[in-house]
Amino acid sequence: MTTSGRFIVVEGLEGAGKTSAIRTIQQWLSEHQIPFISTREPGGTPLAEQIRTLVKQVQDEIVAPETELLLMYASRVQLVKTVIQPALQQGSWVLGDRHDLSSRAYQGGGRQLDENLINSIRQVVLGDLTPDLTLYLDIDPAIGLQRAQARGELDRIELEQLAFFQRTRAKYQQIAATEANIVTIDASQSMQQVQQQILDALQQAYQSGSLSRDAKADLNPDV
Amino acid sequence: MTTSGRFIVVEGLEGAGKTSAIRTIQQWLSEHQIPFISTREPGGTPLAEQIRTLVKQVQDEIVAPETELLLMYASRVQLVKTVIQPALQQGSWVLGDRHDLSSRAYQGGGRQLDENLINSIRQVVLGDLTPDLTLYLDIDPAIGLQRAQARGELDRIELEQLAFFQRTRAKYQQIAATEANIVTIDASQSMQQVQQQILDALQQAYQSGSLSRDAKADLNPDV
Repeated sequence: MTTSGRFIVVEGLEGAGKTSAIRTIQQWLSEHQIPFISTREPGGTPLAEQIRTLVKQVQDEIVAPETELLLMYASRVQLVKTVIQPALQQGSWVLGDRHDLSSRAYQGGGRQLDENLINSIRQVVLGDLTPDLTLYLDIDPAIGLQRAQARGELDRIELEQLAFFQRTRAKYQQIAATEANIVTIDASQSMQQVQQQILDALQQAYQSGSLSRDAKADLNPDV
Repeated sequence: MTTSGRFIVVEGLEGAGKTSAIRTIQQWLSEHQIPFISTREPGGTPLAEQIRTLVKQVQDEIVAPETELLLMYASRVQLVKTVIQPALQQGSWVLGDRHDLSSRAYQGGGRQLDENLINSIRQVVLGDLTPDLTLYLDIDPAIGLQRAQARGELDRIELEQLAFFQRTRAKYQQIAATEANIVTIDASQSMQQVQQQILDALQQAYQSGSLSRDAKADLNPDV
């Protein structure tokens, strides 16, 4: 009997509180004695981390939006093929600090790259891999950026204008409102409130939703 | 009146003699007083050169073929958007040391990645950009690799087994035999013979073929 793992992703703008959310989820996974690995994107393998550095550092030339997109997906496909898919197949859960939705929001919304273009590449890179649960931490970018700035120096993407992040947020909100297995959490609330809503979302998905034991039963008839 | 430039590409396995061929073409372009720039792939811009380094250096992890492909196209799209397209639009010719055909041969043939997958990404990255003339230097990989080895240390891709390069060559040959504006040159001949055939191919394409003034007249009715 084999059971494939579940894939949980935390998404949101800079300063939305992803790091705290991830700690909350890690604790919940540990309490439920669920084996898991944590990843981050872009990055998560030594090569993917080198791609992360490339895409985030300020360059002396204009970085074409398509270049940024392909670097993000190069990093993603390396992580998916060498880490995420093997882990899920071995029954481990995977907790991702960002995943595909980030590219759709930042490069699709923020950079305004064509959706068909992004979907072509997504199909190539991801096939039918999709997170079982995405927790989207929604924050006004004016607030999020202030928090991010307070943490230290901003990278190439964080240096974008407010309008870029407003478009990114709008795309996040649009996708979260229309696609399955994405829970939006108001990240302007107190840390305690945010934490409680994350735990509620996990518990609900675990008991009867996309994280439950039966959720993938039809995909794995041998389970 | 504007005239768009022409895009000439030199292709072939390691040790096929691309560098000599490029020198021959550069001299021909100068003699014809044609303004041109030279590029290479992967690479050709500071960021694309950093991607080149990433993709060519030996990694501590297995590099997924899809990662290699996306890094190649990330490098390519940066070069195309920031160097090749602007140059062609300004009427400059572009001489490329490798271009898209390399990915089709190495990642499609050598790595055996699905052709539809590659074509999806090509469409996204290149649109309708296609070289006006490609000179493919055909060489037995056993000979080419010997020449490349004699030059010094081999990079991650050059360290592949002979079968990888045989598949790459077969894909090169197949595409060169079926698609327009690709001239195959037997690179096992003497340097003088190869050089003469390159000049013949250039002259013919310039006078009445894909490099001639009329070749793009239908695309540029204002010329």
